[in-house]
Amino acid sequence: MRFFSDNAAAVSQPVLDALANANSVDTAYDDDALSQRLDAAFSELFESDVTALWVSTGTAANALALAALCPPHGSIICHREAHIQNDECGAPEFYTHGAKLLLGEGEGAKLAPAEIERLAASIRDDVHQMQIGALSITQASEYGMVYQPDEVRALADICHAKGWSLHMDGARFANAVAHLDCAPADISWRVGVDMLSFGCVKNGGMSAEAMILFGDAREKAAEIRYRRKRGGHLLSKGRYLAAQLMAMLTDDLWLANARAANAGAKLIADAAPDRLVYPAEANEVFITLSADEAASLRAAGFDFYDWGIGEARFVTSWDQREEDIRPLAAAIAAL
Amino acid sequence: MRFFSDNAAAVSQPVLDALANANSVDTAYDDDALSQRLDAAFSELFESDVTALWVSTGTAANALALAALCPPHGSIICHREAHIQNDECGAPEFYTHGAKLLLGEGEGAKLAPAEIERLAASIRDDVHQMQIGALSITQASEYGMVYQPDEVRALADICHAKGWSLHMDGARFANAVAHLDCAPADISWRVGVDMLSFGCVKNGGMSAEAMILFGDAREKAAEIRYRRKRGGHLLSKGRYLAAQLMAMLTDDLWLANARAANAGAKLIADAAPDRLVYPAEANEVFITLSADEAASLRAAGFDFYDWGIGEARFVTSWDQREEDIRPLAAAIAAL
Amino acid sequence: MRFFSDNAAAVSQPVLDALANANSVDTAYDDDALSQRLDAAFSELFESDVTALWVSTGTAANALALAALCPPHGSIICHREAHIQNDECGAPEFYTHGAKLLLGEGEGAKLAPAEIERLAASIRDDVHQMQIGALSITQASEYGMVYQPDEVRALADICHAKGWSLHMDGARFANAVAHLDCAPADISWRVGVDMLSFGCVKNGGMSAEAMILFGDAREKAAEIRYRRKRGGHLLSKGRYLAAQLMAMLTDDLWLANARAANAGAKLIADAAPDRLVYPAEANEVFITLSADEAASLRAAGFDFYDWGIGEARFVTSWDQREEDIRPLAAAIAAL
Amino acid sequence: MRFFSDNAAAVSQPVLDALANANSVDTAYDDDALSQRLDAAFSELFESDVTALWVSTGTAANALALAALCPPHGSIICHREAHIQNDECGAPEFYTHGAKLLLGEGEGAKLAPAEIERLAASIRDDVHQMQIGALSITQASEYGMVYQPDEVRALADICHAKGWSLHMDGARFANAVAHLDCAPADISWRVGVDMLSFGCVKNGGMSAEAMILFGDAREKAAEIRYRRKRGGHLLSKGRYLAAQLMAMLTDDLWLANARAANAGAKLIADAAPDRLVYPAEANEVFITLSADEAASLRAAGFDFYDWGIGEARFVTSWDQREEDIRPLAAAIAAL
Repeated sequence: MRFFSDNAAAVSQPVLDALANANSVDTAYDDDALSQRLDAAFSELFESDVTALWVSTGTAANALALAALCPPHGSIICHREAHIQNDECGAPEFYTHGAKLLLGEGEGAKLAPAEIERLAASIRDDVHQMQIGALSITQASEYGMVYQPDEVRALADICHAKGWSLHMDGARFANAVAHLDCAPADISWRVGVDMLSFGCVKNGGMSAEAMILFGDAREKAAEIRYRRKRGGHLLSKGRYLAAQLMAMLTDDLWLANARAANAGAKLIADAAPDRLVYPAEANEVFITLSADEAASLRAAGFDFYDWGIGEARFVTSWDQREEDIRPLAAAIAAL
Repeated sequence: MRFFSDNAAAVSQPVLDALANANSVDTAYDDDALSQRLDAAFSELFESDVTALWVSTGTAANALALAALCPPHGSIICHREAHIQNDECGAPEFYTHGAKLLLGEGEGAKLAPAEIERLAASIRDDVHQMQIGALSITQASEYGMVYQPDEVRALADICHAKGWSLHMDGARFANAVAHLDCAPADISWRVGVDMLSFGCVKNGGMSAEAMILFGDAREKAAEIRYRRKRGGHLLSKGRYLAAQLMAMLTDDLWLANARAANAGAKLIADAAPDRLVYPAEANEVFITLSADEAASLRAAGFDFYDWGIGEARFVTSWDQREEDIRPLAAAIAAL
Repeated sequence: MRFFSDNAAAVSQPVLDALANANSVDTAYDDDALSQRLDAAFSELFESDVTALWVSTGTAANALALAALCPPHGSIICHREAHIQNDECGAPEFYTHGAKLLLGEGEGAKLAPAEIERLAASIRDDVHQMQIGALSITQASEYGMVYQPDEVRALADICHAKGWSLHMDGARFANAVAHLDCAPADISWRVGVDMLSFGCVKNGGMSAEAMILFGDAREKAAEIRYRRKRGGHLLSKGRYLAAQLMAMLTDDLWLANARAANAGAKLIADAAPDRLVYPAEANEVFITLSADEAASLRAAGFDFYDWGIGEARFVTSWDQREEDIRPLAAAIAAL
Repeated sequence: MRFFSDNAAAVSQPVLDALANANSVDTAYDDDALSQRLDAAFSELFESDVTALWVSTGTAANALALAALCPPHGSIICHREAHIQNDECGAPEFYTHGAKLLLGEGEGAKLAPAEIERLAASIRDDVHQMQIGALSITQASEYGMVYQPDEVRALADICHAKGWSLHMDGARFANAVAHLDCAPADISWRVGVDMLSFGCVKNGGMSAEAMILFGDAREKAAEIRYRRKRGGHLLSKGRYLAAQLMAMLTDDLWLANARAANAGAKLIADAAPDRLVYPAEANEVFITLSADEAASLRAAGFDFYDWGIGEARFVTSWDQREEDIRPLAAAIAAL
C-alpha cells in the first residue's frame, strides 16, 4: 500500500463521470457553460461573491496569485518549508518576474505573528531592499498542521495593516476545512484571506485547481486572466477543467474526500501517539522511525518517504479505506 | 452547426476511455508507467529516437520549445500571422524572458526562404540588435496551408547554416500529415525540424499536447523539464495526459481524426472553388463572403468567424460527419 | 572629420568642470545635494512640478519608463525604425518583462494618428492578445525629423482616450526644442507627454540622462526608483550624474549645444537640397549618395555611415564648428 | 568626519584627470581606444589572459556575471549577509530572470566548505528544486573580513567538482589584496575564481567597475555583452569608463588607495581591540557600542551607522588621512 503522496491517488469517479458528461461541443477556453458557472458555484460555497478561475496545477495557481499580489521588485513571506519555496522550481520567481521569497521559521511549517513581525523588521524601507508585498501561508501546512481561524486572522491583520496581501496555498484546503469542521468562509475571507489556491488534484481531482479571489482582490481577476493565458494555462477545452471543479463541489464531494483522507491519517496517528513529530491534523502523518523500523515496514509492503534522518512521512488519500490503512497502523503499533 | 474552431469540438471516445483506464494509483508527475512509455511510442511513430514531453496546451509547448532554443536577448522569426505572435498573449516572450518575434510575410501564413534571408539581412551583427536564434513555422499554417517537405527542408537548411534552430508549431500537424499522406518523419526531422509541438487538443484530445525533440535537440530535454515545472506545467497526475497521447497514437487515431476533419474542409472548399482565399489543404477554409451572404448563412444555422472584411473562416473538426457538413457546402454553393 | 554619430563627440567643458566641482564627500546614491536639486531644476525648466531621475544611458531611461507604463502582458506602439526597437537589444522587453513592441509605419520615423488607430484596431480585446499600454515616440525622430506640438497633442489625445500613456524618447529632445524654438513644456506635458527621456549624452554630456515624469505619471516615481536600483542603475556616487545634468541646464547649455549641432546639419542640408531624403530638422542629414560619391567623400577625409543602398547619414555634433563642416558641405555640393 | 560608507568618498584626482584627458572624439560604446586596451591592461595585472568589461555599478557587474553563470531555474549560493542578497533590490533575480539565492551562514559573512556542502545536500536532484549553478562570495566580506587564498581554493574545488561556477563580488577586492599583500592572481583565478567584479567606485573611482572573466569563463563574454546592452549598461561614451579603470591601474593607484583605506581602519581597530566584533582586515570596522557611547561619538562630530543593537560600523575611505582618523580612534579609546 502506497503512502507516498496524495498526488499518486486515483481520480474520484464523479470527476471522471463529469468529463464524459461534458463531452460535447461548447465554446472554447473559458467561455463555455461550465466555466461560466464557476463564479456562482464558488460564491455559494464561500457565502460571498468570489471570482473563481481554473488552472491545471497548484503551482500555477500559487504563482499566478503571487504575481498578481507582489511586484517583481517585492518580497513574499513564506515558511522555510513552504511548497512554493521548495517544490515549485521557482515558479513564484518566474511568474512574479523575480520577486524574492523571504523565509520564516515556525513549528510544523506554520507561521505566527511574531515571526512575521521579525521578518518585516528585517527589511529596511529603502530602494536597496525588496519591500514585502504579500504573505503566503499553506493550509493545511506542509507538515499536516492546520491554522485555526484566529491564527489566520492575526496574520491577516498584520498584512493588511502593512498594505500587504494574504495568499493561502490551499492544496489541502479541503483537509483543513474537514479538520476544523467550519464553513469554508470561516477560514478564508472572513479571516482576511485575499486569494486562495483551492486544491482539488490531491483530493480526488484529475487536473483542475481553482484560484479563488475574495473581496477587493477580485479586481485582480482581469490581470490574472492575461497572466494565465501568457503562462500557457488557458486550456482551449477549459470546460473539462470546470467540469472537474463542479463535480468536486456537487454534494460536497470535496469535503467527503478530505474527511476520508483525514480519517486515514488519524488511524495511523492513533497507532503511534508517541512517535508523532507533529499533530496529525490533516492527511499527513510524520513519525519518528529508525532506519531498521522503516525497513521492516517496507518489507511488509508499505511505501512511504523518509523525512530527514529518523523520521518518515505517510500521506493518506481520499481513496484509501479503513481496511487499507489498518494494517499499516497495526504494523507501526507493533514496532 | 459550429465552424468556429476545432478547439470547441468534443473529445474522442478512446481518449476519454483512456482516462478511465488510467484511473488507478501510480507514481506522480511523469514517473508513472504511461508517461514513461511516451518516448518509445513517439520514437516508433517518428522512426527515430525522440524525446516526448506532455504539456496541457499548445501555447505551453510552443513557448517552452522557443525558450530552449533562443536566449532572452535573441530573436525568433515567425510569420506575421503566426499563432505565437497573435494568439498566445506573449507566452513566447514570457518563457524566453523577453526574446523578440521577428515578423515575416508570406502567402497563406507560410514563410519562404527569400523572406527568411531578407529578415536575416535586416539584423546587424552587433550587440545593439537581438540576434536570430530560431525560426518557428506553423504546420498546417494559420490559413490552412501545408508546407511540403522540400519547403521545410529549404528553411531548415538556412537555419542550420546560420546556427539557428527550427521549431514547428504543429497544432494541426496531424492535418498536415493527413494532407501530405507522408510519414511523420518525412515532414519533421528528416527535413530538419528540431522541435515539434505535436498537437492533439484540436484533433480530439482533451488537455494533452506533446513536445517532440529530435536529434541534437534532445539535449535540451533536461532544461525543458525544469522550465516546464517552473511554468506550472508539470501536472502531478501526469499519467492522465500521457494516457490521452497514447490513445491518440493507438491505431493511428490521430490520423483518422485529422483525415475526417480535412475531408470536411474539402467538402466546403469544393462547394466554393471561386471563393477560396487560400487552398484548403487542412481543416480550415477561408472564403470570400459578403456581409449579406454571411448573414444568410448564419440565419440558416451555421456559425463561423468573419475574417477581416469580406472574408470568413470555417474550421472543421474530427467529429463532424459528412452529413453535418453537406448542408453548409450546399448553402455556400447556393449563394 | 567624423559624422558617424553624436555619440562619438567629446564632452562639453562645463560638464567636465562640474565633475571636478562635485568632487568632495557627499551622501551616496541620490541623497546628495546635487541629486536632491534635480526636481526643482527641471521643474523650473518645464514650468511644472516634475520628477527628475538620473540614469546613465538613454536605453535605461527608455526601458525604465516603459516598464512603469506597460505591464508584462501589454504592448507598446512604436515606429518600425524606433531606437527602442532596433538599437537597444531588447532593453524594453527586458525591463517590461516581455511586453511586445507593436510596430507602426510613417514617413521619417514619425507616427501619425491614423497609423495609431490602425494598430489599435488590429488588437482584439481578449486575453489572447497583448493589449496596448503605451505609445512611445522619438523626438527628434531617428531620421532627424521633429514632431510639431499639435502632432504630439493629436497622438496624446488618442493615448489618453484609450487609457494608454505617452512616452517620448528624447535622446535628441534638445535638438527638437532648438528646431521648434518653443518652451520645453510646449512639446512635452502641455501636449500630453507623460514621461520623457531627456537626453544629454548626445548633446555634450558624458554619462547622464534624465527621466522626466510629468503630472500623474509622477506617481510612478517610487516604482521606478526600485526598478532603477534593481537594474543596477542607481550609481553609488550619483552626484556625478546630477552634476552633469545641472551643468547642462545652467545657462541653457543644453540648448546652445543643440543649436550648434542643428546649425551644422543645416549647413550640410543647404548644400544638397536635391539630395535630401528627409528634411533636416535636427542634427541628422540623410542624403542620396551613390557608392562612387560616397567613396569620393571618404577619400576626402569625411567619415559617415551608409544608410541602406544609395543613401548616407551625416550626424553633426555640438562641438563641430562651422569651419569644421563647411568643407563637407562644399564637397557634397561639388559632387 | 564621515564614516558612513566608502561610497560617499570623493574621486581620486588621477581618475578625474583621466576624464579630461579622454575628452576628444572617439568611437562610441566600447570600440574606442581606451576600452580596447582594457583586456591587455587587466591581463597584465592578473598575469593571465582575461576579458575585462566596464560597467557603471557593482550591482550591474554582479548581476550580469550571475546571469551568465546560472540559468533562470537555478540557484546561487551566497551568504545571508551578502550584498547581492540584501542591498541590490533583487538585481540578481532580475538579470538571471528569477534564479534563487540560497543563503548560507558563516562568521563575518564568510562561507566555509562545510556550509557549502550542507546547502548542496539540501537540494534534491529533481525538477521540483532549483539546482545550484554558482557560488558567489564577497572579497573582502560585508563584515570587512578577507578570504585567504586557500579558503577560496577550497570553495572553488567544491564548485568545480559539482559543475558550478565561482563568482567573486570584489567591490572591495583592492582592500583584500592590500590586506593579503599578494598578487591579484593569487586570490582570483589561481585559486579557482571564474568571474570577478573588480570594484573601483568605493576605492576612488567615479562610475566604473570592471567585470573580469578568467579562463573558460571568457567564453561567456559575448553573451554578457548582449546582456549588458540589454540592461542599458553599454554607455555610448564608454571611453570615460575605460579611462577611469586605466587610471586606477596606472602606477597601482587602486592598491595605494586600498592601502590607505585599510590603514585607516586599522587605526580605529587598534584603538578598540576589545570592542571588535570581527577582525578589521579591510576598510570596515565593526565594534560594540552602546547607545550612549554612539551618541557621544556623534556629538563629537563622527558620523557612522548603527549595526543592529549595540554595534556600529565605521567605514574608512581612500581619501581619509591619518590625521582625519586619529581623532575618532582617540575618541573610541577614551569611551
